[in-house]
Amino acid sequence: MKKPIPLFFLVAVTAWAVSATELSKNIRQVVEIHRLRPQTGSAGHRIPQIDCLSWRLGVETNNIRDWKLVPSDCENYVGHYMLGEQYRDDCEIVADAAIEYANGLTLSGDGTEIWVFDIDETTLSNIPYYARSDVAFGAVPYNDTKFDEWVSEGKAPAIPASLRLYNAVLSLGIKPVFLTGTKEAFREVRTANLKEAGYYNWEKLILKGVNDTGSAVEYKSGKRTELVNAGYKIVGNIGDQWSDLLGVDVGDRTFKLPDPMYYIG
Amino acid sequence: MKKPIPLFFLVAVTAWAVSATELSKNIRQVVEIHRLRPQTGSAGHRIPQIDCLSWRLGVETNNIRDWKLVPSDCENYVGHYMLGEQYRDDCEIVADAAIEYANGLTLSGDGTEIWVFDIDETTLSNIPYYARSDVAFGAVPYNDTKFDEWVSEGKAPAIPASLRLYNAVLSLGIKPVFLTGTKEAFREVRTANLKEAGYYNWEKLILKGVNDTGSAVEYKSGKRTELVNAGYKIVGNIGDQWSDLLGVDVGDRTFKLPDPMYYIG
Repeated sequence: MKKPIPLFFLVAVTAWAVSATELSKNIRQVVEIHRLRPQTGSAGHRIPQIDCLSWRLGVETNNIRDWKLVPSDCENYVGHYMLGEQYRDDCEIVADAAIEYANGLTLSGDGTEIWVFDIDETTLSNIPYYARSDVAFGAVPYNDTKFDEWVSEGKAPAIPASLRLYNAVLSLGIKPVFLTGTKEAFREVRTANLKEAGYYNWEKLILKGVNDTGSAVEYKSGKRTELVNAGYKIVGNIGDQWSDLLGVDVGDRTFKLPDPMYYIG
Repeated sequence: MKKPIPLFFLVAVTAWAVSATELSKNIRQVVEIHRLRPQTGSAGHRIPQIDCLSWRLGVETNNIRDWKLVPSDCENYVGHYMLGEQYRDDCEIVADAAIEYANGLTLSGDGTEIWVFDIDETTLSNIPYYARSDVAFGAVPYNDTKFDEWVSEGKAPAIPASLRLYNAVLSLGIKPVFLTGTKEAFREVRTANLKEAGYYNWEKLILKGVNDTGSAVEYKSGKRTELVNAGYKIVGNIGDQWSDLLGVDVGDRTFKLPDPMYYIG
């Protein structure tokens, strides 16, 4: 009389195993591609909400501009993206392209070639700050007092992909120049932070002086033009904001790192 | 003696149900965000392959240039992307941004304002061609004879988001100008195809003449400069290639539609 037990049990376990395999297949399918149906419920009806993947692509391609906040629907999405593997992988492939380009350059050898690096979300990461509940990955309004306090701590880690690019650039004899919107008052702590993070040498570290006014594009363009007028040749330029890469004297080639947390125009 | 049967069965079924719920939760988590661990096997070890999401972002942000073929690892990824909802959603959010921008313009009312539209993968979609097994979404080398045959059929459908933008632009009194790398010899069939797809009016349809040489950037820049010299004001410019949007006289604002299938430099 005990025979039916293992049989039933076996059927149930087999059913579970098959279902798990099917589900696992589906997961892999989704994982290998992307969201085919990102906003549909189980019955196939459309769930009205912003498509955060599309929003992020719109931001990264500079189609969506002048945004103030991460859409509240996308706070979790942006958080998971920034803390997950995808952000790091996205940075690595930018570094790959930049290093391939740098390796292909014919350099003059006269020491005039420079590579312009933005700092925040380019050489240094503010993820420890942005992950705070009162910052929420850019889904709550920017607070400059709080951000300045974080910068003063000097604890921002390097973005590994950018550090790799920096070391490649240095080894080729191209001189790194850091150009940041951070105020001049933070020179000391930023210098210490850069060194702590693994950036030991640079040709110049340009911070925003009290007389540097105008938009980010104007400020950075002006500083780059000064570099060019001083005899430097900007062979590469990398930043997380399009305002790092547009304007005048942008360099022979520009590279855009991802940043779905904030917009600087 | 039959009592244990439902009990065991129940335990097994419950175990299955719980597991299915857990798995389903995981699927939803993945679906709502993105691939947190895109290249790891079940034991957590890294599977060496290109990260197609990162590759696509690199392409769309113009970090990865001069590529000849979709990486073979990404053929399925690109195919699923192009045929799925995500590509359409990504196009819609570009159209949203472009229409919002167009609506905010103060127009002169003198009929000089134009919006430049590229054709392939901008106003018209070649997905029916690219989905063919001998084309494989750009994972096999480009064959101009085959592509010309497809163009000659005049059966390319509209990209819905771009048709929406086109109609919005027209209704505002901005005149559409189509600027394409397609050869002049295809003028008749392209005209018929555009009308068939829902694009009925335009100020100009500029195709590539036998004397139009140089790169795509040079060709398109030259044609845009001719438009500006003729008294037109380019208020907007949309294309799927960065070569549609870079160079001179690019317009007051540019919009980049996705295209992970081919690169035109």
